[in-house]
Amino acid sequence: MAYQPEHTESNMLGDSVKTVPHVLGLHKKPVHTSNEANAFDRWIAEKMLQLIGAPPISIELWDGSVIGPKNSRHILSLNDRSALWQLLIDPEYNFGDLYSTERAAVDTPLQSFLVDVYLALQPQKQRGIRRHFPEWLHRPRGNTLTGSQGNIHHHYDLGNEFYKLWLDTEAMQYTCAYFPEPAMTLEQAQIAKLHHICRKLQLKPGDRVVEAGCGWGGLARFMARHYGVTVHAYNISHQQVLYARERAAQEGLSDNVTYVEEDYRNISGKYDVFVSVGMLEHVGRDQYQVLGEVIARCLKSNGRGLVHSIGRNRPGLMNAWIEKRIFPGAYPPSLKEFMDIFEPNGLSVQDVENLRLHYAKTLEHWLLRFEQHAEQVREMYDEIFVRAWRLYLAGSIAAFMSSDLQLFQVVFNRAHSNVLPWSRAHVYSDEAQGIKLSGSLE
Amino acid sequence: MAYQPEHTESNMLGDSVKTVPHVLGLHKKPVHTSNEANAFDRWIAEKMLQLIGAPPISIELWDGSVIGPKNSRHILSLNDRSALWQLLIDPEYNFGDLYSTERAAVDTPLQSFLVDVYLALQPQKQRGIRRHFPEWLHRPRGNTLTGSQGNIHHHYDLGNEFYKLWLDTEAMQYTCAYFPEPAMTLEQAQIAKLHHICRKLQLKPGDRVVEAGCGWGGLARFMARHYGVTVHAYNISHQQVLYARERAAQEGLSDNVTYVEEDYRNISGKYDVFVSVGMLEHVGRDQYQVLGEVIARCLKSNGRGLVHSIGRNRPGLMNAWIEKRIFPGAYPPSLKEFMDIFEPNGLSVQDVENLRLHYAKTLEHWLLRFEQHAEQVREMYDEIFVRAWRLYLAGSIAAFMSSDLQLFQVVFNRAHSNVLPWSRAHVYSDEAQGIKLSGSLE
Repeated sequence: MAYQPEHTESNMLGDSVKTVPHVLGLHKKPVHTSNEANAFDRWIAEKMLQLIGAPPISIELWDGSVIGPKNSRHILSLNDRSALWQLLIDPEYNFGDLYSTERAAVDTPLQSFLVDVYLALQPQKQRGIRRHFPEWLHRPRGNTLTGSQGNIHHHYDLGNEFYKLWLDTEAMQYTCAYFPEPAMTLEQAQIAKLHHICRKLQLKPGDRVVEAGCGWGGLARFMARHYGVTVHAYNISHQQVLYARERAAQEGLSDNVTYVEEDYRNISGKYDVFVSVGMLEHVGRDQYQVLGEVIARCLKSNGRGLVHSIGRNRPGLMNAWIEKRIFPGAYPPSLKEFMDIFEPNGLSVQDVENLRLHYAKTLEHWLLRFEQHAEQVREMYDEIFVRAWRLYLAGSIAAFMSSDLQLFQVVFNRAHSNVLPWSRAHVYSDEAQGIKLSGSLE
Repeated sequence: MAYQPEHTESNMLGDSVKTVPHVLGLHKKPVHTSNEANAFDRWIAEKMLQLIGAPPISIELWDGSVIGPKNSRHILSLNDRSALWQLLIDPEYNFGDLYSTERAAVDTPLQSFLVDVYLALQPQKQRGIRRHFPEWLHRPRGNTLTGSQGNIHHHYDLGNEFYKLWLDTEAMQYTCAYFPEPAMTLEQAQIAKLHHICRKLQLKPGDRVVEAGCGWGGLARFMARHYGVTVHAYNISHQQVLYARERAAQEGLSDNVTYVEEDYRNISGKYDVFVSVGMLEHVGRDQYQVLGEVIARCLKSNGRGLVHSIGRNRPGLMNAWIEKRIFPGAYPPSLKEFMDIFEPNGLSVQDVENLRLHYAKTLEHWLLRFEQHAEQVREMYDEIFVRAWRLYLAGSIAAFMSSDLQLFQVVFNRAHSNVLPWSRAHVYSDEAQGIKLSGSLE
């Protein structure tokens, strides 16, 4: 599904500018050429650097004048006065649009620039200093049944061809991989992640598994093939479900895996295992208790489950720009918030693992492949899209590297079940061997 | 320190009854012989069984009449009418005193009776039905600096000789052991627990460790001897600190381990590692943020830590009788509450493990040894004390078996540290070997 701009128009400066509808809701706006930067512009630039915690960054204004510390590691170029003001007003949100539309640029790899920004911002966040605009301005979009549909469509229905360009070729996993050996390839690490989850869940042949939010269906097929279970896998992304069904049919797994194009709130039946990888980010914090009720309803008495999600060390909204342009409705919970799934619903947490650095590494692989295919992406969409997605991937690397984001895998069971392993050694007993064995999915 | 009753007096029935001060604040009260049980007594007994969720238990009243279901597995005998009324009014609290003072008895092993009580009570608790008396009546005693002193003295200064009778002989650990092989002896499992903690903390020679709440100092000496670290270990129980220092001197570890008779809130210095095993239960939920501030203050930038504590699947008070008679000031947190230590203080949770069944097994070992030494305990204290402690140990087994209580080990580090292991395999790599090696502490 290549993106087709409906029409273009010229601004007063004669540039050809795409207008509605852009796939990300972004377009270049006509910008009047700015005058030479004056003393007030330079004062504003200095003020802004102070406000974001004095990172090692200089600002190059539109007339070439440079403001900032002597030991700066990065130069942020701003093309016009309005860009400067927009950054001052709401840097976290406006930088994304300015970068995507080429009104801001950075002279170093984006992720290293953003790590320094995150590290500078964090002491403020820790002291509870909010961004300048009130939080409700950036409130995530709602996740009612129809709201979720729109939010998920925005991101996951961009087209399977787009994601195939830069996700792993083995299982097309658009979630954090697992690198017990950091030198593993992305393909190895995604397979290692699938094994890691299956071992944590102690899958045994014949188990009935339900998966909430199955992406392109890789985990469900993997479980069926390698662990002999049957899976009902739910997803509301139409394109992903079509792809998943086709793959299952090709691989002769249609009897073992059923892909259901339905919201997780409509899960029915009784299962030995509940699993959800990378869906909770889209559930919305007001729906955690509902998710817990769904789990409690569908899990057998000795059932067990795993929820894998991006999270935080303390509550906070998703980066506002990412929430608006990339992931509408997304919210990464702190562990305290995460517990709202389990505590009211008779579920008992057995194991939590934080895989933060694994997600940074996963994203580095994705960004590398994305850049290798940037030309193709540009042809499918446009330059704005390429820059926005580059920023999203690089910004996510920075967020995981600077500990602004975490990745939690939470294993749980019904509170009263005493069918529990006496140690977690089974997850690790043949880890090295498992990785070698699992180098390929076939 | 054998318990010495100050004086005895006779009640109207001529029994010799101990009065103040009993070490647990318990004494037999004069009870008038009850009349024959009447229809109203029997109705009350039936009502009470209904109120606690219809467990498989019959009640034998003081005149020998029996009330209860046909398929009952246990008979609870009540010696007088007042006991029946006290159970009706507040069963969770009053059963303990009635059992301890021989006004109530059970014909089956206490822990199996109590498991059935817990399982019957839990659906009510889950629906949020409170016990009949308001919660503030059973509010835990406060944990101010002086409050904690009194609370800890009450329990841990009962006398080292008493605890030596039934704790493991290797390290005198009064916390949950680790049974990766359920058939391990208590000594093996306590040593396995110490290794498990040290591995999770990735101790390396030369690390500076601070321990909050060190008991008889076994973990600190173990870390110093087996992992080559230096330890500052804090405890406010005078008797425990004296014992710990003596053992360290005997073992030639006085240069490596410093026992400090101080509250954890007075910890000073900078450390690579923070560890606390079995103290959080006594910290009190209003002090979690303070504990987190202490950790944030004393941990170096790449520091890591572990807190090991009894917990819950959802918030709830400690059993009121145990809080009053055995563990004043005790409160086991849910994971959500637990997070109040970390989330406000720039700390990042890396790993949570729930060892619930390991504590049930530990307590089974303790209860067995306690019963083997019941005669000695009776001589040191009295029959009331023996029965109260039997009930506490058996009740704790039941609480862990029925999932009323959990045991959480939480590993964390400073949020910004990227010095993290790529997997938890190092905790398990030589688990079997480690257990064999660690069969003895010497």
